[in-house]
This record gives sequence, structure tokens and C-alpha cells, in this order.
Amino acid sequence: MYKGPAQGFKLERENEYGTPAQNAAVAEIVEAVRREGDAALLRYTAAFDKTTLTPEELRVPQEEIQAAYEKVDAQFVEALRQAAANIRSFHEKQKRSTWVDVQPDGTMLGMVLRPLRRVGLYVPGGKAAYPSSVLMNVIPAKVAGVPEIVMVTPPATGGRQGIDPYILVAAAEAGVTEMYRVGGAQAVAALAYGTDSIPAVDKICGPGNIYVALAKRAVFGAVDIDSIAGPSEIVVLADDSADPGYIAADMLSQAEHDEMASAVLVTPSAKLADAVAAELERQLATLPRREIASKSMEQHGAIIVTQDMSEGVDVVNKLAPEHLEIMTEDPLELLGRIETAGAIFLGPYSAEAVGDYFAGPNHILPTNGTARFSSPLNVDDFLKKSSLIRYSKEALRRDAAGIALLARHEGLEGHARAVEIRLEGRDGK
Amino acid sequence: MYKGPAQGFKLERENEYGTPAQNAAVAEIVEAVRREGDAALLRYTAAFDKTTLTPEELRVPQEEIQAAYEKVDAQFVEALRQAAANIRSFHEKQKRSTWVDVQPDGTMLGMVLRPLRRVGLYVPGGKAAYPSSVLMNVIPAKVAGVPEIVMVTPPATGGRQGIDPYILVAAAEAGVTEMYRVGGAQAVAALAYGTDSIPAVDKICGPGNIYVALAKRAVFGAVDIDSIAGPSEIVVLADDSADPGYIAADMLSQAEHDEMASAVLVTPSAKLADAVAAELERQLATLPRREIASKSMEQHGAIIVTQDMSEGVDVVNKLAPEHLEIMTEDPLELLGRIETAGAIFLGPYSAEAVGDYFAGPNHILPTNGTARFSSPLNVDDFLKKSSLIRYSKEALRRDAAGIALLARHEGLEGHARAVEIRLEGRDGK
Repeated sequence: MYKGPAQGFKLERENEYGTPAQNAAVAEIVEAVRREGDAALLRYTAAFDKTTLTPEELRVPQEEIQAAYEKVDAQFVEALRQAAANIRSFHEKQKRSTWVDVQPDGTMLGMVLRPLRRVGLYVPGGKAAYPSSVLMNVIPAKVAGVPEIVMVTPPATGGRQGIDPYILVAAAEAGVTEMYRVGGAQAVAALAYGTDSIPAVDKICGPGNIYVALAKRAVFGAVDIDSIAGPSEIVVLADDSADPGYIAADMLSQAEHDEMASAVLVTPSAKLADAVAAELERQLATLPRREIASKSMEQHGAIIVTQDMSEGVDVVNKLAPEHLEIMTEDPLELLGRIETAGAIFLGPYSAEAVGDYFAGPNHILPTNGTARFSSPLNVDDFLKKSSLIRYSKEALRRDAAGIALLARHEGLEGHARAVEIRLEGRDGK
Repeated sequence: MYKGPAQGFKLERENEYGTPAQNAAVAEIVEAVRREGDAALLRYTAAFDKTTLTPEELRVPQEEIQAAYEKVDAQFVEALRQAAANIRSFHEKQKRSTWVDVQPDGTMLGMVLRPLRRVGLYVPGGKAAYPSSVLMNVIPAKVAGVPEIVMVTPPATGGRQGIDPYILVAAAEAGVTEMYRVGGAQAVAALAYGTDSIPAVDKICGPGNIYVALAKRAVFGAVDIDSIAGPSEIVVLADDSADPGYIAADMLSQAEHDEMASAVLVTPSAKLADAVAAELERQLATLPRREIASKSMEQHGAIIVTQDMSEGVDVVNKLAPEHLEIMTEDPLELLGRIETAGAIFLGPYSAEAVGDYFAGPNHILPTNGTARFSSPLNVDDFLKKSSLIRYSKEALRRDAAGIALLARHEGLEGHARAVEIRLEGRDGK
């Protein structure tokens, strides 16, 4: 763990572009599924997931989803429903509508907003299958009005009925409309290009391993993709008013995710820095995932002691963190100076875990410094816009000379003529 | 040109992924500029643009921009300013603000919206340098509040003062804050990774040749990019009430762009189909760019005669065109059934050229069927969002059990503890 002034610290981050061998493997899989459809999909599922399926078995039947409800804890369902209600309520507030501006001369200009028609969600198998992420991915699409939301997730190795019932319940609660037991690059290719069993989607969301990430990159353009998730990060900006125990707990909640996760404290207080370092050690000792968390803290953790709070703000803006907690006497005083962060948590009671699971804002956030140019997953990500232009003859007459002049300057005589033909005394019917 | 029923027609479209040799060349250039900065940038400029520059000569000086105003036509500047005012006014209406929702228990949830800090615009050299595209790219960023907008454009071959003065004037009018004489994949790499002369940006916009497109794809992730533009398309949906001369003129204004452009009429009227075919021939004869336009019409043009208007709408939704003109008795009757189009032009006087240059909506639109999932360039493309979460102790106490339950289900004990430590009777300060 780095402990010292801002100058000496550099957060090491790399985007995942994969090795040439990984890229070649993904290219081959994507191409095969594109060309052969279901046949390739089932072949790769047999090879990689050790699961032999018929095309009919790809889709998870309604009975299996019903059966999942019998298997899960009732309290879990209750908590999940409350979380879903909060997420829905927050995302409802993001929703925008079609607008038009009608002018006295008959001109009408506007933007038509519509939901995407069909969206695919990748859910990883095994321990990385998080019900909370299913909610966070699906609900914004649902709120946007997307009618078809398709989930793909690997079949459990060796079995045909192996999808985690908690994932099935989360998907059903969130509003997934179709579920398929297929994973890896082959599932991404199927969503992008479609097969007989799985019709193509317009956008693919959701996290996955390196092969899934590379497949999403490979099909980008044929369909839209969400961002390619990097390792998770938290930065805590704090002063002497903060409780070192809270800070350490939040840093460890990030560090326990995986060894690549990064937890950073930025503070002008040397006293707080020492207290947090001690708390980290104390709390780590009893953490079930202490092996992962301590490796993460060792390699990517830091306590940065700045000259003052102003330098602290600069450090935060440079890091452009996925999660930022501000635990200072008056967090609102600093909020306006924070230029770049995926999610901002204010004050002592806003633990990152509150946002990860429950509060309502999305936990799918820009990682790896990409908060510089990207945003939390939100309703806009599932809407498409069309410009709307209605000109009247009067408006066209007023603007024709300007349009024709600009068009002719660009050498596009046909554009000028398309305007002028309408003013030539023809009736236009 | 295809002429016949909908069943027989398929619009051939391919995304530009480049040849392996082109991709390898681009990868080498990008990597060299990333590693060597200005040295590589100047070396490639000498090699590809036959222009030897010092690092100081990369930036276009204020005097050169001033001098450009002396060289351009006064009427051009006037028309450009009117177009810019219209574009600004339309994009101002897209602008959204930060919002927060404050609840009685002290919870505050919201979204903070901020402009990107620095944006780069690629402007191609030669005949593809369109002043109108400079306006369309820059103004949304300006309206979003982006403080630094950087233009790069190739130096004219062999000269040091060779940038088209019309481009310089358009850039100055639109609000570009820095201009550099550098082009190709090397310019894209410089914008993405920064050099001593050209600081890195957060997002790269603008069209270019295949090398520019591949370079944008290669740096995506390190920075954001706009879409990768494909060939331009128009679809006209019309009935017997439409003037065949207008339709033909609009189709040709698309076809004159380049041989890859596509112009398609969709109509249930065989009579209109014949009349438009005749008009196309008549108008083509005198079009200055008839060679390009007739190749485009031959290879990618079509007149599709549908069984009825309902099938016409289906064809449009399947094509997901960049530009859609609806020239029917009552265009508003059909508008609600159009699911997918970049820009929609209603009625006889809304020539596509009106939108290309003047009306205000953006002419940078999703091509190649990508209107299925993407949108016209707009102010949102230059804003980043941050979620805002402020929980009170009361709210945390209410939700703690649910959060802890969900976290523990996912095996993330540290998340549960980060909530519980705040309710343990510690003072929290």
C-alpha cells in the first residue's frame, strides 16, 4: 500500500485489450456463430461449458423460473423487491420525453425519443453472478420502455438446470422477458448477430470475463454495447471530522471485490491517515475475504496525505474515480469542485454499500478513469433519439438562399437544387 | 438501381473494419505517437502529408485565423452565422441540468451533470472539409459547456499555411479554442494520448478516411469517440400526393455525396414510382456530380413498391435510415409508427438539405442502420453524469438489514460490515 504525498502516487490502470491469442480466439468464435448460428453456439457450449444442449433447451422455460422462487430465501426476495423499487423510482426521475418546438411560420423542430426494441444482458456464471447487478442492468432498460430484455448466462458446468435460482428470481423481478443458458464469447455473438433460437438485439450490456469483454468490443458497431467494465475503485476524501473506522470499512468493502480493485484515502490530515491505516489492519484481520482484500490493498491501495483540502480535490479530479466518498465537516462545500466521479457519496452515513445495493442510483459506473467521459448506466442508454424537421414553404423561402450558398460552397449542387426546385412555382401538390 | 417489391430488396451495408494491413498500419502509428509524442507526430506528417513542421508550427496561430476572414466571401460568413445561430438555438433546447431529490428523512439522491473538459474534432482535408460539419460538431459541445475544443486537420500537402480559410472561419465562428495542422491516424493518437504540443482530450469527434476511423476505434476506451460514420443514406416514404420532382431531387442530393451513398424511395404507388424514375433520369443529366450520383443510384439506389403504406412503414423500420422523408397526404399520421430513423423530415418543404445546413438539428446522424441504437449528435454526448447519494443515519438504520442481507448473499461480508459499523453506537463524529 502506498502511504505518502500526492506527488509520489500513480494509480496503475490498464484497459483490457486482451492478448493476441485471446483476440484471435474470440474473433474465431464470433465469426463461427455469425456464420453457423445455433450449430456453432451449441458446439462451443459443449466444448467450454461441458454441457450438451438441443436448440430447444437453450431457452430457460417458465417452469424453471417458477421453481426458482421455491428455492430462494423469502427474506432475500423481500429485500430484493425493496431494492428494485428504489432503483425503479430513481431511474423514473431520469426519464425524458419527446419534445417539439412549433414556430409561427409553421416550422416544427424537435427530438423524438423512443426505447430500444431489444436489449441483451450478459450475466456471468459462478460466484460473479450478482442478483444486484441484474437489477441495475435491467431496470433502466425497463424504465426506458424496452419491450424485449434478453438474459444470457452460462449453464452450470455439466448440468442443464444449473442456473442460480437467485439470478433467475432477480431477472424475473427486474423484468427480463427471455432467458437463455449460454455464455462466453459465443453468447455475445449470438446476441449481436442472432441465431434461429436467439434473435439479435440492439444493445448488449453486462459484465463478464476477458473473453466476454473482447467479444463485446468485437461486435461493437453491429450492435451497441455498454462500457467495458474495469476493476472497481473507491476514493475517500476526508478530513479530521471523519470516523477512521467507517473509512477503513468502506475501503475494505471495495478491496474485497477482487485483487485488481483499488481503495484510496485522500486527506490533508496525517492523524486521520494513521488512524485509518490502523483500522484497516484491525478490520482486515476478521474479514472473510481477507486474502483478496489484503492483496488488493497491497497492490492498489493508497493513503495519500495532501498539503490541504484543495490539493485533495485536485487529486480526486485527476483520479476520476468510479466511487467517491466525501467525509468532511461540510461535504456540500466541496461538491461543486469535484469535476469527475462516477458516483459521489456525501457524509458519514452514505457508505458505498448503500449505493451498491439499495439507494436507487445505478451501481454500474465508469471505471478505470473513464468517468472523464462516461456516466453511470442510466435510462438514456436505452433510448434512441430522432431529430424531427418540418419546414413550411414560408420558412423555406426565407432560408433558401443561405442553404443554397452553403451547399454550393461545399460543391454539392444537388443539395442547392433540392431546395430551389420547391420554389420554382411548381405546385408541390 | 433496384425497382420492385419489398421482398426482393436488401440494402447492402458493411461496417468499416479495415483490412488487416490497414489495421496493422494504424496500430503502429498509434503506438509510435503514444510512445514518442511529437517526434512521431512530425515524422508521420512529413511522410504522409509531405509537410515538414517544427513542434511550434503545429498550432495554427491567431493571425492565420484572422487572415482567413479576409479571404472568405462575406455572404458565406453571413449564411454561416445564421446557420450557427439556428443550430445553437436547437441544441440549447436539449440542455439538461443537475437535479436532486431531497426526502424528509434527510436522504438526497440525484444526478450531477457536467461538461467534458476537453474535446477533439477531426476535420478531413481536401474536398471532404465541410464548414457545415464543423458547426454541427462544435456547437453541441459548446452548448454543453465544454471549455476546451481542439480541432485537428491535415496541413495542405507541401505547404505550411494550407488550411482552407473557410474551415478556419467556421471553426472560429463555432467556438473552437485551439487548432492544429495535423491529420491521419497520427492526429487521432495525439488527441487520445497527448503529446508535448497537443494535450490529450476526453473525447474525439469528426469524420475521416479509413485510417482515421480505424484509429478512433483503436483508441476507444482511452478516450470516448463519437460513432464511426458510414456512407450516407436517405429513404423517402411517399404516396401519390408527393411531387416526384422533389423526391428525385432529394434522392440525388444524397447520391451526389459519394458512390457508397444510398437513396431509396418506398411507396405503395406504382404511378409515383414510375414518375420518380423518370425524374431521376431527367435531373441526373444536368447534375455536376452526375458521375458519382449515377454510380451511387446504380449500386445502392432503389425504388420499392409496397403493397400498402403499412408495408412501407415496415420497410422503413427495417432499413433504420439515417434520413427519412415522409411526403404523404398526412405525415403526422405515420410519424408514430416510425420506430427508427436518425432524422425525420415531414412534408413537401422539408428537403433533407434544409437539415444538412440550416434548420438547427444536427446533421451528424447514425448511418448504416445504427439508428437502431444510436442518436443524432447532441448535447448529452458532451456531458458526463455523476450519481449523488446522501444517506441520513435514519435512512441507513431503516435499510441496513436489507443491504446487509443482499451483500452477504453475494459473499461480500465487508459490504455488510461497512453498513453495520455505522449503527454500532459509535459516535460517527
